[in-house]
Amino acid sequence: MDFFSLFVKDFVQQLQSPTLAFLIGGMVIAALGSELVIPESICTIIVFMLLTKIGLTGGIAIRNSNLADMVLPMICAVVVGILVVFIARYTLAKLPKVKVVDAIATGGLFGAVSGSTMAAGLTVLEEQKISYEAWAGALYPFMDIPALVTAIVVANIYLNNKKRKEAANSIMKTVAAGDYPDRKEYPSSRQEYLNEQKGDGENRVKIWPIIEESLRGPALSAMLLGLALGILTQPESVYKSFYDPLFRGLLSILMLVMGMEAWSRIGELRKVAQWYVVYSVVAPFIHGLIAFGLGMIAHYTMNFSMGGVVILAVIAASSSDISGPPTLRAGIPSANPSAYIGASTAVGTPIAIGLCIPFFVGLAQAIGGV
Amino acid sequence: MDFFSLFVKDFVQQLQSPTLAFLIGGMVIAALGSELVIPESICTIIVFMLLTKIGLTGGIAIRNSNLADMVLPMICAVVVGILVVFIARYTLAKLPKVKVVDAIATGGLFGAVSGSTMAAGLTVLEEQKISYEAWAGALYPFMDIPALVTAIVVANIYLNNKKRKEAANSIMKTVAAGDYPDRKEYPSSRQEYLNEQKGDGENRVKIWPIIEESLRGPALSAMLLGLALGILTQPESVYKSFYDPLFRGLLSILMLVMGMEAWSRIGELRKVAQWYVVYSVVAPFIHGLIAFGLGMIAHYTMNFSMGGVVILAVIAASSSDISGPPTLRAGIPSANPSAYIGASTAVGTPIAIGLCIPFFVGLAQAIGGV
Amino acid sequence: MDFFSLFVKDFVQQLQSPTLAFLIGGMVIAALGSELVIPESICTIIVFMLLTKIGLTGGIAIRNSNLADMVLPMICAVVVGILVVFIARYTLAKLPKVKVVDAIATGGLFGAVSGSTMAAGLTVLEEQKISYEAWAGALYPFMDIPALVTAIVVANIYLNNKKRKEAANSIMKTVAAGDYPDRKEYPSSRQEYLNEQKGDGENRVKIWPIIEESLRGPALSAMLLGLALGILTQPESVYKSFYDPLFRGLLSILMLVMGMEAWSRIGELRKVAQWYVVYSVVAPFIHGLIAFGLGMIAHYTMNFSMGGVVILAVIAASSSDISGPPTLRAGIPSANPSAYIGASTAVGTPIAIGLCIPFFVGLAQAIGGV
Repeated sequence: MDFFSLFVKDFVQQLQSPTLAFLIGGMVIAALGSELVIPESICTIIVFMLLTKIGLTGGIAIRNSNLADMVLPMICAVVVGILVVFIARYTLAKLPKVKVVDAIATGGLFGAVSGSTMAAGLTVLEEQKISYEAWAGALYPFMDIPALVTAIVVANIYLNNKKRKEAANSIMKTVAAGDYPDRKEYPSSRQEYLNEQKGDGENRVKIWPIIEESLRGPALSAMLLGLALGILTQPESVYKSFYDPLFRGLLSILMLVMGMEAWSRIGELRKVAQWYVVYSVVAPFIHGLIAFGLGMIAHYTMNFSMGGVVILAVIAASSSDISGPPTLRAGIPSANPSAYIGASTAVGTPIAIGLCIPFFVGLAQAIGGV
Repeated sequence: MDFFSLFVKDFVQQLQSPTLAFLIGGMVIAALGSELVIPESICTIIVFMLLTKIGLTGGIAIRNSNLADMVLPMICAVVVGILVVFIARYTLAKLPKVKVVDAIATGGLFGAVSGSTMAAGLTVLEEQKISYEAWAGALYPFMDIPALVTAIVVANIYLNNKKRKEAANSIMKTVAAGDYPDRKEYPSSRQEYLNEQKGDGENRVKIWPIIEESLRGPALSAMLLGLALGILTQPESVYKSFYDPLFRGLLSILMLVMGMEAWSRIGELRKVAQWYVVYSVVAPFIHGLIAFGLGMIAHYTMNFSMGGVVILAVIAASSSDISGPPTLRAGIPSANPSAYIGASTAVGTPIAIGLCIPFFVGLAQAIGGV
Repeated sequence: MDFFSLFVKDFVQQLQSPTLAFLIGGMVIAALGSELVIPESICTIIVFMLLTKIGLTGGIAIRNSNLADMVLPMICAVVVGILVVFIARYTLAKLPKVKVVDAIATGGLFGAVSGSTMAAGLTVLEEQKISYEAWAGALYPFMDIPALVTAIVVANIYLNNKKRKEAANSIMKTVAAGDYPDRKEYPSSRQEYLNEQKGDGENRVKIWPIIEESLRGPALSAMLLGLALGILTQPESVYKSFYDPLFRGLLSILMLVMGMEAWSRIGELRKVAQWYVVYSVVAPFIHGLIAFGLGMIAHYTMNFSMGGVVILAVIAASSSDISGPPTLRAGIPSANPSAYIGASTAVGTPIAIGLCIPFFVGLAQAIGGV
């Protein structure tokens, strides 16, 4: 019952946090027929500033870390970030009537990291006097950024294949009707159609242009630019005076916009909402356990502390409420924000903070005797 | 003479304040033919941020107040805020050649509250050791927001009636010319024409859609959204890091734009400027006395302190230089900013600070023996 | 060798400063084919805010200075600022294949002042215990703003003359072909053509409209508005809460945009880059020596301190990395930012900090025995 009351308390607090409050506010004013409009050019610059800040934060954290010590836990973080997206791709996305892009975006958000969940985890470790590496907090960009990049790339690959399939299908119908078109694309499209049947194996060659395309898109190029500037240059003065202090405020405007957008698409979720709830309750534990397992390998081979293993599990269990939504809005515009933000902030985060943190701390104490 | 020199000193200070300085700056560069343009999308987001901030400020103040104690003074504040707009509607707007929408907007600005005038009033009370309720400052949104909402609604009702009247007139002429049009709207327009003749009584049914329309407009929906988020959620983190610190700077840009707009319309005021001066000198006293009278009822029935009565009178006497202009620009775009901002900031505010504050403090001392 | 290592160290630091880092970042992502776009309306408001801030900074500094004491050094600063542009106009711009507008813009940037170079100079003076007037730092707007205004005006005069010349040439050809056009502009254009042949002397009458036009443009009207508001009003509250703290961050976005723009035009520089390097190495010394000479006159006639003379020389040797780029981008849009920013930030600033500061301090010690 204590777990349950913690969960409810955290759920109510989440609803009152500016991120979710502005999202719900946007849905409410859209429902009431408000004529409020945030100009598109403003959304563009807000997304740019948010993603540059996310990249800068990660880049500065990486520059200030001792990479040699971190190498194995870092690899664990990257692997978990990528894996989480593929888990969503092959579980949530396969459920009846769930849209594949929505599921991939949700996976991206659950792979990305919530700074506040991580902070809550660090606080609990300190309260319980469980020691951990000082650089453990710097692991988060190594899970956060790969998860978001993977989600965007996987979504683009899916959308690309879908388009080809549709093109191939329409050609097949044309062919069946005896109407042979005089087009160069025909055999290639046919090949693609066959590839679809055989699976992804033979398709790999064509994935690279899509990855390149994703990286060149406005979302990832802003984020990777920030990352590179954070690692290679000294952007601290603009980071501290501009990108960091404005972040939450700009996010609140974007959340409002996303709330208004979400309202117009909330009907899509009527028949699948239960799957998102199931996913959001189960996934944080699965992701956390995978990270915990990988962390244990680092514990036995590299003497990575048990506190560090818990942090790795907690950031895997967490789902992003801050860095994820603007990135996915720009990177996978066709995904429905009601699905991925709803799943992440309304269910995933309370589960992660209220249930997963105590669970993984308890697990570490039981196993490692800390 | 002391009053007069105080007035002049305050007048000069007002001219140097960023709000008025940027307004005059905008007029000057427009007069000099500057090609400076602030893009429309920027104005839209600035207005959104200013109005959200105004709403948030009010909402947070309301959430942090003890509503039970405040109920009667609060009602007084709401009544005065609404009344002030109707006073302008039936005095200033009826003066020869004064445009009705300009007068309503001016009434809205005089009904709205100036935070700096209120702060000056609180300082004088403290200097004179007159005690007042700690929550008295939180009365201001209860006068500010109703006044601005009322002004926008009243202006929209007026503009709507005017449009119908013109439509009806053109139909009457058509009818007189024996040219019966084959339109469904005809009887309804005729009815409206008759309603116009009979007065507002029978028109009431049609006011609601206009109120609804006003509340859905970008100005009021941003402000009411901010108000709701301020009351129901915990937006303090974005309020303190974003909406509040950026407020004055964003306002300075908007004042520049409004100055440029005002310059192109200043000619309209040539024949009516004297009425605005008369109104701006007299109105603060009238509004303050009404609020003082209502406050005395609360004083005798609910033991509302005399200091509180003075604060109520001072916020009624004050006219908004901050929250009003952006709200009215977005809510009543056809009103001339040279009229309402000129009246409020150039005359109304110096009168309120220089003359009304000492007057109402003296009145309270004379009546209540504080 | 000490000088050289200082130079290299400063060069690397410059590359890591946010200004240059975002510029290079913009070039890199443009080179990689990023689809990132900063909307034009955002660039417009950023330029407006940057230039207003530059003007406000200058205006506030002037308002807070003792103008009577400063009058002669002030005149020196203005003269140097204007002279530097004309030096570039008649040296760099005359070099083979160097574009005239690029050279004028580069001159404007070298005439404008770098706050950080000046700060480095003040620090060295304090370390060496060389005394200087407290207001010496306030000399910078008197060199900065005239240089930028002169550059924009000179560029517009040049572009205007070029256009007329082309028009006159095409008319001459038309005339030669016996095809007399029936246009009112004909004699005036002919006159202009003759004026071109005779030199600038008789052209002076037509310069004023161009100066007026330049001052009315968005760049200079924002800067002069800021200057006037800084001198005449009290904009400190918005300056400190808005224009100043946001400056570096907004500049970083603009530098990114300029980097992307520069990339697409970097090819233009291939054949002339060596001239920019020569200019950027030599010019800081020439400019510094002129200012030093003029400062010595003030030293002997008005008792201007030798420390003050050094400061004057250092601000003349410095080239703007902050105020200049946004001003010139808006004021001389046809100039190539790769040329002027490259010359100033990549070569001019390290030379000024690493070589000119010690040189002028040494010179003052040798001459003045400080």
